[in-house]
Amino acid sequence: MNRKGSEYYIKGIKAGDKYILGKAITLMESELGVDRLLSVEILRNLSAKSSNSFRIGITGVPGVGKSTFIEAFGGYLISIGKKVAVLAVDPSSEKTGGSILGDKTRMSTLSNNELAFIRPSPTKNTLGGVSSATRENILLCEAAGYDVIIIETVGVGQSETHVRNMVDFFLLLMLPGAGDELQGIKKGIMEMADGLIINKADGSNLIMAKQAQSDYKNALHMFPPTESGWIPKVDICSSLEKTGLKGVWDIIISHRELLDQKDLLNDMRNNQNVTWFREQISQSLLSHFFADENNLQLKRQLEKEISQGKIGPKESLSLLMEKAFAIGD
Amino acid sequence: MNRKGSEYYIKGIKAGDKYILGKAITLMESELGVDRLLSVEILRNLSAKSSNSFRIGITGVPGVGKSTFIEAFGGYLISIGKKVAVLAVDPSSEKTGGSILGDKTRMSTLSNNELAFIRPSPTKNTLGGVSSATRENILLCEAAGYDVIIIETVGVGQSETHVRNMVDFFLLLMLPGAGDELQGIKKGIMEMADGLIINKADGSNLIMAKQAQSDYKNALHMFPPTESGWIPKVDICSSLEKTGLKGVWDIIISHRELLDQKDLLNDMRNNQNVTWFREQISQSLLSHFFADENNLQLKRQLEKEISQGKIGPKESLSLLMEKAFAIGD
Repeated sequence: MNRKGSEYYIKGIKAGDKYILGKAITLMESELGVDRLLSVEILRNLSAKSSNSFRIGITGVPGVGKSTFIEAFGGYLISIGKKVAVLAVDPSSEKTGGSILGDKTRMSTLSNNELAFIRPSPTKNTLGGVSSATRENILLCEAAGYDVIIIETVGVGQSETHVRNMVDFFLLLMLPGAGDELQGIKKGIMEMADGLIINKADGSNLIMAKQAQSDYKNALHMFPPTESGWIPKVDICSSLEKTGLKGVWDIIISHRELLDQKDLLNDMRNNQNVTWFREQISQSLLSHFFADENNLQLKRQLEKEISQGKIGPKESLSLLMEKAFAIGD
Repeated sequence: MNRKGSEYYIKGIKAGDKYILGKAITLMESELGVDRLLSVEILRNLSAKSSNSFRIGITGVPGVGKSTFIEAFGGYLISIGKKVAVLAVDPSSEKTGGSILGDKTRMSTLSNNELAFIRPSPTKNTLGGVSSATRENILLCEAAGYDVIIIETVGVGQSETHVRNMVDFFLLLMLPGAGDELQGIKKGIMEMADGLIINKADGSNLIMAKQAQSDYKNALHMFPPTESGWIPKVDICSSLEKTGLKGVWDIIISHRELLDQKDLLNDMRNNQNVTWFREQISQSLLSHFFADENNLQLKRQLEKEISQGKIGPKESLSLLMEKAFAIGD
């Protein structure tokens, strides 16, 4: 096998070569030790300067029309001169297993555009792994000259908090029948949103969408603003009729203006990195601990007994830790 | 020192002896190995049967009147024949360092009542430790015959998620001027609430409080229901004039009726225990890892460099793990 060195990747990415960018992303997602070392070397050489890109997280329940929205919104961004990268996080049931064919088919117009780069979901589903790689992939796309990086996630899983912590702006897509999809959305996601966009605001849905906009606006107004002082905005759009897309971008721009005005962008991104680092220490320690099959089996056994009310959690913890380290909790 | 055995505590608690209950709680909060062993033994003997108690978390920003509310609400509960225990979680700035004097002074009427037990905040502030002990303390209070266990926390810290995960019902206290205190509340807390009570609904505040109630009702209606299908309720009360307290209790009762109807109470509590167990494994591994001063110092150094944008988080993680385990991430 003819392995390429870091120079090959660095040069290729800086030149905006999509093929090499794709290969570098595969490398970031690899768990092989040798790939990891190469990844770190590439990143060290690329991420020296901070980027002025827009990192946008997009979520919403299956059926809300995320793919169509990203296709339409991405098209709008390209029409105003932006280069757009789309990274998907969850291999979700609504997609064909997160396969390349599935994702590229979903966004056929965008994926054929020279100024767009679409990266489908990794097939593996370890949350730590995926969100770790996605974070690095954002940096690669920025180094390759993409101005807007869209991270797509499904608003029903566990990954939203992780995605929230790697983007500048978190956008929640909703359906016009306000309340209809509430059952599907995980609690807490609405409060994470910087913007709430009601999609499918077209045809006979338009009146409902406007009503939902007004309802959500009132609702969000009752909730605490973000740390930056940003108050989440609500708007409507139609991916089908390609209306309201400029409005979405205007919201994102005014959010960025607020961050710039308070000089918060880099601080926020650096803080996100610190948070991620801390979380990953936990993850690494857990992986290391449960690499020992005995620990894993005992943990599963104890969880079962706790869920049946047969043993208390404190006693369980003592048992596990004593077994593993001969220490207390 | 004349150490008491587990029999002393078990008998005393079952007899409802407040002095022994207090001593047992001190034992739960102790980090000494010998105390920990004794704690586990006591718990094993007490928590065999599941309790039909009400575990209620109460939060709200400083100034919302939590102590006065708990004093008034606790008084109401006692008047209808309940025994009430109050456990505080945060040693917060609004209290006098969480000292016994501070807490007992805050709720003087309640603390002098034979049917109430008030346990002030532990002075140590390690989140894991506090919430760990609080979880056990709930069990002790239940074994001592308390029907309602109130866990008080301040809605601005890190402990709400932990408290949410150890109670049946999470109540958020708000002020009449809707929106006034939003700056102080941490994002995500409103979505965790099963009930939202607007306190200080008296005198010239009454009209404002009713308006806030209507506004919050509309807002909460736009948010996803809890897993049990419960839709959070909003009501008003005055701790000063002791009005609306029955309304608060009615909400909690109807929530319990829903859980009973779906036979969810024990499942929910057991699941909370499993979640807690998993979180504590992480905590224990982190404590064990950072007990090594070298690991701790390297972590701090790396965090500093990440926050200054000097090094990437992935590279930092590699460095830390290689140093500690001679492994990758």
